[in-house]
Amino acid sequence: MTNQKKIVLSEEEIPEQWYNVVAEMPNKPMPILHPGTKQPLKTEDLFPIFAEELSRQETNQTDVWIDIPEEVREKYRIYRPSPLVRATGLEKALDTPAHIYFKNESVSPVGSHKLNSALAQAYYCKKEGITNITTETGAGQWGTAMAFAAETFGLELAVYMVKISYEQKPYRRSLMQTWGAQVIASPSMSTKAGRKILTDHPTYQGSLGTAISEAIELAMQTPNCKYTLGSVLNHVSLHQTVIGLEAEKQMEIAGEYPDIIIGCFGGGSNFSGIAYPFMRHNFKEGRKTRFIAAEPSSCPKLTRGIFQYDFGDEAGYTPLLPMFTLGHNFAPAHIHAGGLRYHGAGTIVSQLLKDGWMEAVDIDQLDSFEAGVLFARTEGIVPAPESSHAIAAAVNEALKAKEEGIAKTILFNLSGHGLVDMSAYDQYFAGDLTNYSLSDEDIKKNVDQLEKII
Amino acid sequence: MTNQKKIVLSEEEIPEQWYNVVAEMPNKPMPILHPGTKQPLKTEDLFPIFAEELSRQETNQTDVWIDIPEEVREKYRIYRPSPLVRATGLEKALDTPAHIYFKNESVSPVGSHKLNSALAQAYYCKKEGITNITTETGAGQWGTAMAFAAETFGLELAVYMVKISYEQKPYRRSLMQTWGAQVIASPSMSTKAGRKILTDHPTYQGSLGTAISEAIELAMQTPNCKYTLGSVLNHVSLHQTVIGLEAEKQMEIAGEYPDIIIGCFGGGSNFSGIAYPFMRHNFKEGRKTRFIAAEPSSCPKLTRGIFQYDFGDEAGYTPLLPMFTLGHNFAPAHIHAGGLRYHGAGTIVSQLLKDGWMEAVDIDQLDSFEAGVLFARTEGIVPAPESSHAIAAAVNEALKAKEEGIAKTILFNLSGHGLVDMSAYDQYFAGDLTNYSLSDEDIKKNVDQLEKII
Repeated sequence: MTNQKKIVLSEEEIPEQWYNVVAEMPNKPMPILHPGTKQPLKTEDLFPIFAEELSRQETNQTDVWIDIPEEVREKYRIYRPSPLVRATGLEKALDTPAHIYFKNESVSPVGSHKLNSALAQAYYCKKEGITNITTETGAGQWGTAMAFAAETFGLELAVYMVKISYEQKPYRRSLMQTWGAQVIASPSMSTKAGRKILTDHPTYQGSLGTAISEAIELAMQTPNCKYTLGSVLNHVSLHQTVIGLEAEKQMEIAGEYPDIIIGCFGGGSNFSGIAYPFMRHNFKEGRKTRFIAAEPSSCPKLTRGIFQYDFGDEAGYTPLLPMFTLGHNFAPAHIHAGGLRYHGAGTIVSQLLKDGWMEAVDIDQLDSFEAGVLFARTEGIVPAPESSHAIAAAVNEALKAKEEGIAKTILFNLSGHGLVDMSAYDQYFAGDLTNYSLSDEDIKKNVDQLEKII
Repeated sequence: MTNQKKIVLSEEEIPEQWYNVVAEMPNKPMPILHPGTKQPLKTEDLFPIFAEELSRQETNQTDVWIDIPEEVREKYRIYRPSPLVRATGLEKALDTPAHIYFKNESVSPVGSHKLNSALAQAYYCKKEGITNITTETGAGQWGTAMAFAAETFGLELAVYMVKISYEQKPYRRSLMQTWGAQVIASPSMSTKAGRKILTDHPTYQGSLGTAISEAIELAMQTPNCKYTLGSVLNHVSLHQTVIGLEAEKQMEIAGEYPDIIIGCFGGGSNFSGIAYPFMRHNFKEGRKTRFIAAEPSSCPKLTRGIFQYDFGDEAGYTPLLPMFTLGHNFAPAHIHAGGLRYHGAGTIVSQLLKDGWMEAVDIDQLDSFEAGVLFARTEGIVPAPESSHAIAAAVNEALKAKEEGIAKTILFNLSGHGLVDMSAYDQYFAGDLTNYSLSDEDIKKNVDQLEKII
């Protein structure tokens, strides 16, 4: 037991292995399918798109622990281990008996957890002699992370940035440029996928799905070039488990074990990272920890989507993934949590949700900002609009604990800070933000178009 | 000796006392004078403007160590101790035998060292029953710190923000508003000082000197209200010594002692903080550590100003301070390091410079950005434009060490990050920034207006 506000580990305690949850899941996810043949994809089928080692990690269902290369751990030392913080200010403001902890991933130089996977992906690409990489970014957090990682390992990077974010978040663009990346607003005229959308819908504001299509297309047409992705995929979740593995040691120092673990949810990268290392104790030791994914109510694939095979991108370039989805053509509202505007969930998370190992809640935009401002005023850190969804869910649970008079232990992941998202806060204070509700019909319209494979 | 990238202390190691350099300086600064009588000011003369305890700290020339209240240390735990980092990436890029360390004050939730004094000032005000405070801010770093500190201790805050920054740095304004402060562009019509300037010069873009005048005027006219300042004054430097006191322990863990210590220089707060705790070993043990203040060449009070009594503000509301100055009417160029655009230096620093205990260098705007980008690409952290002046000076010293083939140990203070200053980086990359040179005549014109008291 400690009375430290921040529980800090030494650099030697940066995990030496990532945790590969697939190897220990009671039910494995269904296989990824080739979109043409509908046959399960082999590891080698991924080689044209991803670095080979990342492809192997993507399909690895047997190794529980995967070594983190020393070169990646060396770079993790720039910002890892990240602190675990007791949110004493927030607890006091809520007058709750709950103990609230958060893992502070905002301390990374790019301001979010995304660097955990970006450094790994850049490293493997470099090691395999790749010179150029492409990627997409929604709110810009993944793009900035990949920009710094590419700069670190000496790779050229092109980033397709969702057009609405490109315009709303100019500082993110500047950050990527500071780290030497080329940034293109998506949809763009530089790809077939982009040109088609711009021709059909000239004013289309972009989506992650479209940006992914563009980034894949460019990677396929550029010599010695691979594509990288910041969420959804298994190897990304794998890299993010450093968050939960550190948090596990830190909770031990705190002398507590979480009853509830919460992460905001876009494609699943930060939720997976904080959740899986703890979830293994539910699998193996029958622990009853609750895991809650907090998604925006404007993009509710986990709470209101269907479980079906779907594409990961808008143009249908990716394999077919078994997942909770709103349909790959779903165009989410322009909420400020751009990192959560994605139509589907990763295959692992989808299977875990289906099997009842975790829960999902949806959070309205205004509730997320209210929670974010409360957090900024009590804990000092202005959260990213994405992370505010996790905070809102944590606040809800802490208030429930108060009602019930139970001293629950709540852990959430603060995936990033909002210092480059201040225009969103401006709009919130000015009363210019609204909630977005989807009718059942809106949702049905999209998912009904999906081929029924399951 | 350690091979950690980041040298981290535990919360118990947050200093329990601040170091009051005045008590150990071989020559004390000359007295502060009442502007009317020209007589030395007594502590009580400061009570109408500042909290009483801060006034006492301001004039305390005898106590070497001053206790940090437990309530302030408790709040320091949100972000302190800050890491000391070995800049291995920068060293490698410069191919220098020098060991470069930086104290990373950018980890504070407001993004800079300013919170160290803001929390102390807000605490003392609250303790003395004050309900409202005013302050000014240049680039916005002090204002954001004071906003969070005021929110933390339950005080109402009004911030006069230099107009050019108010327009160039909207995110800083949003941050202050997120923490509940009222922000007014200065010059404003809300004060006599502001109205006079707006009437005389309708397009005047503001200066720290003017904003100080406005903030003091508002404080004098508001019941139960005091004024707070983020630099220049002795009590501010005192609070900032937590930086150097922590760094001293951390350098010991690193197994080295700095040959050169560098801070950027506006009014002196961060330079003092990193320098004084080490300088005492020069005073007392004859150490020969070099201390370098890095100021912008567009505002060169230390390298080209005169040592004279001058006002701290534009309108002449403050006492007369013995200092290096460019004259209180000096209107600095609109460089992006808004925190360094101040006409004078604190009285302690001025005396230390006069007595040869420290040096000063001036850095051109373009050189500061070049160093800042190099630092971002090698160490990951995008520095505040202010801090980039310290980086540029450190780079110069590291290159000198390379020429001489000597493994010097260099320590600089990274006073803050630049995540809310990205528009400045945009302009730098677009080639829209220039250097500003002052002719001797420009400088003479202003300082010649000063009353010759010395």
